[in-house]
Amino acid sequence: MVVIGDAYGQAMTAAFRGDPRGIASVERSDGRLMLDIGIDYLAPARRWVPEERAAIRLAKGRVLDVGCGAGRVALHLQERDHEVVAIDVSPGAVALSRERGVRDARELAASQVRTADGPFDTIVMYGNNLGLLRDARHARWLLRRFARATTHGALLLGGTLDPYRTEDPSHLAYQAENRRRGRMSGQIRMRIRFNDLASPWFDYLFVSKDELVSLVQGTGWRLADTIDDGSAQYVAVLERA
Amino acid sequence: MVVIGDAYGQAMTAAFRGDPRGIASVERSDGRLMLDIGIDYLAPARRWVPEERAAIRLAKGRVLDVGCGAGRVALHLQERDHEVVAIDVSPGAVALSRERGVRDARELAASQVRTADGPFDTIVMYGNNLGLLRDARHARWLLRRFARATTHGALLLGGTLDPYRTEDPSHLAYQAENRRRGRMSGQIRMRIRFNDLASPWFDYLFVSKDELVSLVQGTGWRLADTIDDGSAQYVAVLERA
Repeated sequence: MVVIGDAYGQAMTAAFRGDPRGIASVERSDGRLMLDIGIDYLAPARRWVPEERAAIRLAKGRVLDVGCGAGRVALHLQERDHEVVAIDVSPGAVALSRERGVRDARELAASQVRTADGPFDTIVMYGNNLGLLRDARHARWLLRRFARATTHGALLLGGTLDPYRTEDPSHLAYQAENRRRGRMSGQIRMRIRFNDLASPWFDYLFVSKDELVSLVQGTGWRLADTIDDGSAQYVAVLERA
Repeated sequence: MVVIGDAYGQAMTAAFRGDPRGIASVERSDGRLMLDIGIDYLAPARRWVPEERAAIRLAKGRVLDVGCGAGRVALHLQERDHEVVAIDVSPGAVALSRERGVRDARELAASQVRTADGPFDTIVMYGNNLGLLRDARHARWLLRRFARATTHGALLLGGTLDPYRTEDPSHLAYQAENRRRGRMSGQIRMRIRFNDLASPWFDYLFVSKDELVSLVQGTGWRLADTIDDGSAQYVAVLERA
């Protein structure tokens, strides 16, 4: 029986305990299954993708780590004497982050971050977690909310990938169907699967740089820079205007 | 959209091409997803599980390799001058086996092996492929059929695992439900998933040594030996009576 639960946290925890099967699967709403192995949740910074390694050097001051997973970003920044608040909706992820040494890990969704949790000088959304913007409408709402919890000149480092940089017919068909339904091309309805566990379904948003420029308009943020190594994956650097 | 197709062959082919996501998932009929990483389909014999490495030394004469996958067993035996007929229902697996050097790879199900394909001195069912016995009834039918395609004193080397050697509540519940429905405990209804592809549903049988002893009665085979290293996984050595 498939049980709705913390698939993601359990997969990461299994990986941390040394289980080679500790890999979550992403189930897209059209049924496509994809292994969640793009990111090594336990990797130290030297094994991150180049754009994440490069962009993390921009982090300053007090940091909010959104979707902290097993705590790789928080641990890296703590070592560099940043005060870090690490949040994740997954209880397993939060427990694992704490076990691995993250000092302030909280079970909290991005959408639950309050002004009082701030002010933050940097928000990090790594491991494609800029996807937590969900859709165009939620993105604007969330970015405004984040703006209120940040200092002037704060940075948001958001990892994502350009959904148009694929030739996979299945991805292209999914994107076309999205557009037909008035959704953004890179809006993926998905859930995480691991053994008997399935997360609830949720939307996750991949955006091109052009889409991001227009998405952030009027939210208190501007796209200051993008950092990539030529692949579809990139880190967007948003600056609080 | 999920397409019924050669999920298994495509996963193996992707792995062979160097794609780290080239791993199939097994979907059990209760919805549980499991990564198919117990067997490295491309591994040379020195990296096989110990019981497979030990038992393959028993192979003699002309060999039928059932469920050859990417050809690891056939390649190993060819190198040792055995004549090998390698069969698999997966077109991708057969193509990959040929590409990797298997001289006689055929797209054929275990149940389609005819007396005229023989006679074989050894039948190898590695990578848990004793599971292709499917269920108690089909097992007896298939073993009799295999007996007719083999020489006197022929050996069948069948890899499986003892389904009772688990404490996983989800596996135990599945087994209990099997027994309630008159199926053998270790009878798994499953399909293979890879990206957009799903194989048809099929039954796969895991058996304890005791179950195997009674299963082979009257089929022309006897359980001559079992080889294991203490784990749930073992190789059954059946001898043609």
